[in-house]
Amino acid sequence: MKRIDFQTHPDRYRHWRMQCEGRIARLLMDVDPGGGIAEGYELKLNSYDLGVDIELADAVQRLRFEHPEIGAVVLGSAKENVFCAGANIRMLAGASHGHKVNFCKFTNETRLAIEDASAHSGQTYLAAVNGTAAGGGYELAMTAEHILLIDDRRSTVSLPEVALLAVLPGTGGLTRLTDKRRVRRDRADLFCLMEEGVRGARALAWRLVDEVVPPSAWEATVAARAEAFAARSDRPAARGIALTPLAREFSADAIHYPTLDVTIDRAARRADLLIHGPESLPRDLAGIFQAGASFWPLAFARALDDALLHLRTNEPEIGTLVFRARGDLEAVQAADRLLEGYREDWLVREILLYLKRVFKRLDMTSRSLIALVEPRSCFAGTLAEIVLAADRALMLDGPDGGQAVARLALGPLNFGAYPMGNDLTRLGARFLDDPAGLAAARDLLATPLTAEAAEAAGLITLRFDDVDWEDEVRIMLEERASFSPDALTAMEANLRVPGPETMETRIFARLTAWQNWVFQRPNAIGEQGALKRYGSGVQPDYDFRRV
Amino acid sequence: MKRIDFQTHPDRYRHWRMQCEGRIARLLMDVDPGGGIAEGYELKLNSYDLGVDIELADAVQRLRFEHPEIGAVVLGSAKENVFCAGANIRMLAGASHGHKVNFCKFTNETRLAIEDASAHSGQTYLAAVNGTAAGGGYELAMTAEHILLIDDRRSTVSLPEVALLAVLPGTGGLTRLTDKRRVRRDRADLFCLMEEGVRGARALAWRLVDEVVPPSAWEATVAARAEAFAARSDRPAARGIALTPLAREFSADAIHYPTLDVTIDRAARRADLLIHGPESLPRDLAGIFQAGASFWPLAFARALDDALLHLRTNEPEIGTLVFRARGDLEAVQAADRLLEGYREDWLVREILLYLKRVFKRLDMTSRSLIALVEPRSCFAGTLAEIVLAADRALMLDGPDGGQAVARLALGPLNFGAYPMGNDLTRLGARFLDDPAGLAAARDLLATPLTAEAAEAAGLITLRFDDVDWEDEVRIMLEERASFSPDALTAMEANLRVPGPETMETRIFARLTAWQNWVFQRPNAIGEQGALKRYGSGVQPDYDFRRV
Repeated sequence: MKRIDFQTHPDRYRHWRMQCEGRIARLLMDVDPGGGIAEGYELKLNSYDLGVDIELADAVQRLRFEHPEIGAVVLGSAKENVFCAGANIRMLAGASHGHKVNFCKFTNETRLAIEDASAHSGQTYLAAVNGTAAGGGYELAMTAEHILLIDDRRSTVSLPEVALLAVLPGTGGLTRLTDKRRVRRDRADLFCLMEEGVRGARALAWRLVDEVVPPSAWEATVAARAEAFAARSDRPAARGIALTPLAREFSADAIHYPTLDVTIDRAARRADLLIHGPESLPRDLAGIFQAGASFWPLAFARALDDALLHLRTNEPEIGTLVFRARGDLEAVQAADRLLEGYREDWLVREILLYLKRVFKRLDMTSRSLIALVEPRSCFAGTLAEIVLAADRALMLDGPDGGQAVARLALGPLNFGAYPMGNDLTRLGARFLDDPAGLAAARDLLATPLTAEAAEAAGLITLRFDDVDWEDEVRIMLEERASFSPDALTAMEANLRVPGPETMETRIFARLTAWQNWVFQRPNAIGEQGALKRYGSGVQPDYDFRRV
Repeated sequence: MKRIDFQTHPDRYRHWRMQCEGRIARLLMDVDPGGGIAEGYELKLNSYDLGVDIELADAVQRLRFEHPEIGAVVLGSAKENVFCAGANIRMLAGASHGHKVNFCKFTNETRLAIEDASAHSGQTYLAAVNGTAAGGGYELAMTAEHILLIDDRRSTVSLPEVALLAVLPGTGGLTRLTDKRRVRRDRADLFCLMEEGVRGARALAWRLVDEVVPPSAWEATVAARAEAFAARSDRPAARGIALTPLAREFSADAIHYPTLDVTIDRAARRADLLIHGPESLPRDLAGIFQAGASFWPLAFARALDDALLHLRTNEPEIGTLVFRARGDLEAVQAADRLLEGYREDWLVREILLYLKRVFKRLDMTSRSLIALVEPRSCFAGTLAEIVLAADRALMLDGPDGGQAVARLALGPLNFGAYPMGNDLTRLGARFLDDPAGLAAARDLLATPLTAEAAEAAGLITLRFDDVDWEDEVRIMLEERASFSPDALTAMEANLRVPGPETMETRIFARLTAWQNWVFQRPNAIGEQGALKRYGSGVQPDYDFRRV
C-alpha cells in the first residue's frame, strides 16, 4: 500500500482554501470529489477522508506559526448549500477496522488542536455554517467557540450516524454535545436520532448553535463576529516563521530526521527511535526567530510528530516504540532555558504548545512505549517527558566503556508546560496520590540523577547494571512483542491516563472506545449492516439482540 | 435457554458460606466445581461464573438488611492455597458476546455494591487473601478497603488477563489499580504483564495490598483488623428485617410483582413497565420495621431490580423499556416523607441506598428507557427519578376521560438522595451548565406540575395533547425499535452520564467499553485466539497489527 504522508503545503491543497486578510483567516472547505486518498469513493458534498483532514491539520498548524497576525479563524464552506457532510461513508464502509480507528483518532486530534488554538494561542475559531452540516460536518463546527447557522429555512445541523449508519458521532460529537455545548441530555437523544436535523430557532433554543442569521445579514454578521474575537487576541502584528519542508529521508526500514532516527526491526515488530539532542542553539529570542523551523525544540517536535503519524498509519505491525536519546544533557537544559525564559513570546508559546500536543499524540499512540536511559543519553526537561510518558522506563546503572554513566534530569518545564489530556502533568499523573513524591521531584530540579537516585525518586520503572542490561532489555522487549496487540492497546489506554477526566479524555476513552466497539459490530460493518447498505436502497438487516 | 434467576437465599448457596459472629461477618468463597450455571465447564480453584456472583450479590444485600449488627465483613476463601482464580475461562470462551458483557456488568455492579456498603452503610469490607488471588480474584480483593495477604512465600496477587487470555482485567481491575490503589502507572504496567504475580514485601511496596502477614499471625491479625473496622461502624445492635422471597409471577410474556407489572410485546421488541404506587403506608418508623420487606419503597426497589436483571439477561431482544406509573401521587409523596424523615435510621438509610443502586442499575441498562407521564400517574419524588433517568420523557397535556390531568412532582429526595455514578443528581446532570434551571427546579418542590409547567421547567422532553398522544408515542417507539441496537447502546452509554467522572463511571465507560471491544477481537475469541486456546497446550496465534 502507498505510504500516507502527513506533510503537505497550501500550494498542494486540493480540498481547502486558506484566505488571510488583516486579523481574520478563512478556512474554506471545498473538497475535490476526485481527490480521495484511496480508490473506490467520491468525496461528494464536502465529505472527507484522511487526506482532507491532513490538509486541515496542516492549515491549523501553519496559521499558528506562519500567521501571528491572525486572531480569529472562520471555518466555512466554498460550496453552495452544504457546509460539510462528514466522513465519507463509502470510505468508511470499505476501510479496514484499523484504518477507521486511526482515521478517527487523527481527526479527533485535529479537532482538539483547533480548540487548543482558541484556548491557548489567541486564534479563536468560529464556524460559519452556511449550508447543511451533517455528522462529522457538525462535529467540526462544534470545535469552534461560536457557531453561526444561516437561517435559510433549509440549512440544518444533524448527527444522523446512529439512525442512518449504525455507528456513533465518534469524532467528539456525543461528548461535545453534552459537555461543551451543554445540550440537555434528553434533547441530545432526540437530536441524535433525528436524521433530518434541526434548523433555525430550534437549533438555537437547543444550544446546538450560538446564533442564527438571515441570509441578507450573513456576510456582515460573520465578519463582525470574527472581528470581535480577533480584537480580543493577544497575538502581535508580527511576521511569522515558515514551516519549511521537513528534512527527512525514508528508506525501507528507517527514517532519518536531523533530530531523530527511526529504525525498524520487522522481525521483532519494533521501532527504535533515537533522539539527537541539540548541537547548537541560538543565544536569544532574535536567534530563535532566525533559526525558525530549525530551532532544535521545534525541529524535534515536527520530526517526532511526523514519525508517530507515519508509524501509526503505515506500520501497523510495529507494536513497540523504544526511545533512546543521544547528546549533551546540558544542551537540552539550555534549550529548555530558552523556552522557559521567552515563554511569553508568541512563537515560543507556540513551540511549547506544539510540544504539548506532540506528547499528547504520544500518549494516544496505541503502541507500547519503552524508554531506555543509557550513558550519554540526554533525557532532560522536555525530553524527560518521553521517559514519563513511556509505559516503562529502564535505566542503566553502571558506566559504559568510556566510563560515562546514565543521568536523567527534570526541569521546570516538567511541572506545567506539557499537561496531558487529563490536565495533569505527567509527573502529577505519576504521583497521583503522593504529593510528597511530587514535591520531592521538584527539589531535584537542579541535579541530574543517577539510576539509583532516579529510582529512589520514583521516576523510572527499573534499573539494571551493565552486566544485566542487554539481556534484561532484550527479554522484556521479546516478551512484550509476544502479547496480544489488542489487549495491550486496551490496557495501555486505561493505564496511561489515570485520575481526573476532561472532555478530551472522555472523547478518547469513553466515546472512542465505544466507537471502536461499534466499528466491529455486524450491524454496522456486516454485509447486511448499515454502513455497507447505505445508499443501496436496501434497508440494513439488524440482529436486534442488545448487548 | 433456561431463565437465569437472580433471586436466591443463603439456604440454597452452593458457592459461599456466610458466618456472622458478633460484629463481624465472614463471606467465605467455596465454589462447587460442578455447580456452574451453564454446562461445559468446571468451576475449579474458586473460579466463578454468573451463578457464583448472584450468590455474592445476595449475601452482600442480606448483610445490609438482615444484619444491622455487622460492622465489618471479611471476604475470604474456604479452600486451601487459593483465594479466587477469577472468572472461569472456559465459561468465557464458550459464552456469547452478549452474555460476557452482561456478566461483567453484573459483577461490576456487585463489586460497586461492596464498596457502597463500606462507604455508606457502615459495613466495611476487608479481603483476607489466604491464597492465590488471580485476575477477577484480585479484582474482588480490590473492592475491599483493606487487603491482607498471607506471606507464605507462595500466595500471590496477579492480573494475568492480558498476558494469558488477551482480554482485560475488566471487572474494575485496571481502574482500581491506578485510581483506588494508586499504583504508579508504570508499576501497574509491569504488574499487569507479570503472569506469575507478586507476593510478600513487593506486593506491599507496590501498594497492591495493605498488609502482609505471616501464617502464624494470620487468624489473629485478620480478626484484629476486622474488629477495628467494626468498632468504627455506626450500625446498631438491632434486629434486621428479613428479605422475604420476592412475590412475583412469571408468565410467557409478563411478570407480576405487587408494585410492578412487566408486559412484553415481542413483535415491537418492547417491555412496558407499569409501576403501582403505594396503597397503604405505615405511620412511623415502628410501622416501617413492622412492614419490613413489604414497605412500599423497599418492595418497589426489589421488584424493579429483579425485573431489570431479568430483562437484561433473559430478554436480549427487548430493546425498549417503557415506564408508566399508576397510583396516588400524594401517596408517593407520603412515602418519600417517611424516607426523608427517618433517613438517619439504619434501615431507612439502607432503603435509600438500595433505591440509589437500583436507579444506577437503570442508568447502566443497555436498553432505551422511555417514561410516559399520563393522567392518574404518580411520578413524584423517588418515582420522578425514573422520568429523569429516561432517555426521553413524554407527558400528556390534556385530560383523560375522567377529566384527570397528568402531573409530575419533584421532591426533596431528587436533590441528593440518589446520586448517579458520576456523583451528580439526575437533576444536576440535566442542568449541567444551568444552575438557574436547577435552582428553579428546587422552587417547584411544593407543586405538582402540569405538562406545560414541567416542560417550562425543563423536566420533560416533549408534551403532546390528548389528540396526538397515542400516535406520537406509537411512532416514536416504532422508530426507535428500528435502529441498530448496538449504536443505541453506545450512544446511550455516552449521553446518559455527562459531565464529571468518578472511578465508577471510568469503570463502566472507559474500561468496560474497551473490554467489550476486546471481547470481539479474533485475538481473544477467535479459534486461534487466547481464550479459546487457553489450557490446550497450543499457543494462541495473533494477528499482530495494532489498531
